[in-house]
Amino acid sequence: MERFNISEGTICAVSTAPGMGAIAVIRLSGEKAIEITDSIFTSVKEGKRLASAKSHTANFGVIKSPSGEIVDEVVATLFRGPHSFTGEDSVELSCHGSTFIQQRIIELLIAQGCRMALPGEFTQRAFMNGRMDLSQAEAVADVISSSSSAAHRLAIKQMRGGFSKELSLLRDKLLQFVSLVELELDFSEEDVEFADRQDLRDLVDEIEQKISSLAHSFQYGNAIKNGIPVAIVGETNVGKSTLLNWLLNEDRAIVSDVHGTTRDVIEDTMQVNGILFRFIDTAGIRKTDDKVEALGIERTFKKIDEARIVMVVMDGTESVNKNREFLEQNQQYWTGKEAFALLNKIDLIDEQQKRSLLELASTYQLEALAISAKKDINKESVLTELTHRSGVEKADTESVVVTNLRHYEALKNALSAIIRVSDGLTANLSGDLLSRDLRDCLFFLGDITGGEITNDEVLGNIFKHFCIGK
Amino acid sequence: MERFNISEGTICAVSTAPGMGAIAVIRLSGEKAIEITDSIFTSVKEGKRLASAKSHTANFGVIKSPSGEIVDEVVATLFRGPHSFTGEDSVELSCHGSTFIQQRIIELLIAQGCRMALPGEFTQRAFMNGRMDLSQAEAVADVISSSSSAAHRLAIKQMRGGFSKELSLLRDKLLQFVSLVELELDFSEEDVEFADRQDLRDLVDEIEQKISSLAHSFQYGNAIKNGIPVAIVGETNVGKSTLLNWLLNEDRAIVSDVHGTTRDVIEDTMQVNGILFRFIDTAGIRKTDDKVEALGIERTFKKIDEARIVMVVMDGTESVNKNREFLEQNQQYWTGKEAFALLNKIDLIDEQQKRSLLELASTYQLEALAISAKKDINKESVLTELTHRSGVEKADTESVVVTNLRHYEALKNALSAIIRVSDGLTANLSGDLLSRDLRDCLFFLGDITGGEITNDEVLGNIFKHFCIGK
Repeated sequence: MERFNISEGTICAVSTAPGMGAIAVIRLSGEKAIEITDSIFTSVKEGKRLASAKSHTANFGVIKSPSGEIVDEVVATLFRGPHSFTGEDSVELSCHGSTFIQQRIIELLIAQGCRMALPGEFTQRAFMNGRMDLSQAEAVADVISSSSSAAHRLAIKQMRGGFSKELSLLRDKLLQFVSLVELELDFSEEDVEFADRQDLRDLVDEIEQKISSLAHSFQYGNAIKNGIPVAIVGETNVGKSTLLNWLLNEDRAIVSDVHGTTRDVIEDTMQVNGILFRFIDTAGIRKTDDKVEALGIERTFKKIDEARIVMVVMDGTESVNKNREFLEQNQQYWTGKEAFALLNKIDLIDEQQKRSLLELASTYQLEALAISAKKDINKESVLTELTHRSGVEKADTESVVVTNLRHYEALKNALSAIIRVSDGLTANLSGDLLSRDLRDCLFFLGDITGGEITNDEVLGNIFKHFCIGK
Repeated sequence: MERFNISEGTICAVSTAPGMGAIAVIRLSGEKAIEITDSIFTSVKEGKRLASAKSHTANFGVIKSPSGEIVDEVVATLFRGPHSFTGEDSVELSCHGSTFIQQRIIELLIAQGCRMALPGEFTQRAFMNGRMDLSQAEAVADVISSSSSAAHRLAIKQMRGGFSKELSLLRDKLLQFVSLVELELDFSEEDVEFADRQDLRDLVDEIEQKISSLAHSFQYGNAIKNGIPVAIVGETNVGKSTLLNWLLNEDRAIVSDVHGTTRDVIEDTMQVNGILFRFIDTAGIRKTDDKVEALGIERTFKKIDEARIVMVVMDGTESVNKNREFLEQNQQYWTGKEAFALLNKIDLIDEQQKRSLLELASTYQLEALAISAKKDINKESVLTELTHRSGVEKADTESVVVTNLRHYEALKNALSAIIRVSDGLTANLSGDLLSRDLRDCLFFLGDITGGEITNDEVLGNIFKHFCIGK
């Protein structure tokens, strides 16, 4: 890690949510964290300095301005490096939560030589001081922003090591082979092989399989993190907007009785059983001469394509023939997807009609749930079906899920490099050619854990999306 | 304090500001605070339980659900009673600041036997456990909500003891006399005086003086806390709204060239040099037949009366006679107030006109500042003048300022009781008559520190305006 300029100085920031609370926490980290706090802190225990306090102790006292004015009563908790989050000396000041006090203490700390922390700078220091690898540091931001139980679970897993440890191990093994292959180059006249080709082949296969499975998990991981996309598809006026409002318990989409009201794609998220779903209400699918509406329908097709789950809405009050026509014409949109049908307006039809339409759905390989959005019938079944189709419960036992786009890109690059190595081995390529692809693979794997990131700009880009104070 | 039902159970709440932050703090207090935390906390140090950790230590570990799922990595800081804010065993859990995690941990704590804290319940417990008196507890809420430096200073002073210690002392002395006076009643046949009347008189005088000065300070304290009211007074179209916007740096009042635009009283606050001012823009003062406007003018007079400072705005572009007429007709509204004049539109007039109008102002005992709100001339002088006229700097050296309406009411009641005692002493009233008024005075003084508050409803009313988590 010595190639980084570890960010300098002692940093401070309000680490709790902005605004007024009962208490707020101001965090300091850096060489002078304790000394600077001491300069404005007076312990209730007379004569006691933080400088002589033990690590991991909470010290009650007051913050005073240089002119002696008491700013607040606080608890100063000490964490001496390396046994702190950042690995450096750190102090957490727990003060009263008025924005005035928060601001005043920050001002005093800055006057005493602190500087304001950049977004994510505490975590960046933790990474640079070897307290965690880069993918773990990135997961800290995900932990903070995760809003569903499933996303939170993945983020915590990643923060605590996740797949990065496994990747590091494979990368270390690969690095040994690379050294041996490159050693061969020094003896190129003599045609020796220090690196056993069969062992290398085995390792390359193992890595390829691992990376491929990780890269493959991204689509799923991303869906969990940002919400599993669910398209609601049906003819105009079939009640899609009402359905969406019913599921979301609010009045987002405009509901009317005029065909084609919902011209734009509306997206809304909802947590069901700890899983975040992103609902995509789409323009009704029908032939139209209206240009604006035609545009909406084009978007519909695109959205259905991106969706992981498709809910096909059938209108119970329409004839079997009309429903068949719709299903026949549009079945290509949900083929190969997790799709199921909702037979809506069940409150308005008889048992005979219901049975016919359910049968019709099944001939198009659609399981159908009989519901009424308007009369609030059978919502629980819809939610259960969504949970089930999301595959989250099942996948939860798998340990490897990538949720970070940067990791995904690195994995894709590493994968194509390792495939080139594999092909090279098959083609019996010479060591110098193999070496280049092996180096590429090493580089991209290192990208994920941070071992190969060589410039501050990349790091800056990663951490700038963090919140201040973390 | 044994007459209160100390609120029962172990309470918990998120004590930091609502919403997402880098970290959040969840606070527990009560008999089982440590035990309950232990049931969901696993220390990084294997086998270590919080139950065996020392007070004032920060312990790193993870929060796990009963099913073993890791919810977060946290720092649990222990405060063993009575050495805690509430006086009871307390734990502060510093977790990652996602709202999801905050909520999840609270759920787990409640499942383990905590209950959600009521607003102010931590502080209420601190009061009931004798960690602070009632006026100090009330000041905690003021500390948290204070938004100006001056208000903050008063709140901190009060939280750290303020006048309540002094009052308690006087009250204790008075209580001794009351006992003696009441002892006399038991010997009423014998006409003895256990309580030396001259000593009692001295104490009563001291108390009267103290209470009177405290009660008197309320108007000032209240102004500091809620903003010092400043009325902006002038004829219609003199540029009062522009002036207000200029001072506030925003476009609140509607500015137009039609006379009488500002029909309603607009109030806005602004901090100048750490002092909060509450500006009152008023309907233009002029004779009118418009009923709505007449109503506005009536409000104007009322508002000017409540104001502590009056800024009289003169229009530089109007003739000396016109300005004189206005000052002459309206001078009664700022007589006896901290008043000064602003000679506006200075950019549009010559030196001669300026001199004449400044002289005119001085004949009405108004110091005048030449300004232009439109051209941003001389704003700094206006702000300095306001600071100066507020009297805050001067008064800051005084130690006794009452900011709380409840305390003010109690002081007024105590004052009238002690005056009755004083009169009684002069009239040489008998002990039983004195005793009643002495008891009244004791009661109202005790009201402030909480010693005499006998029911939960009163306490509930005081603490319900606190924020949750404090």
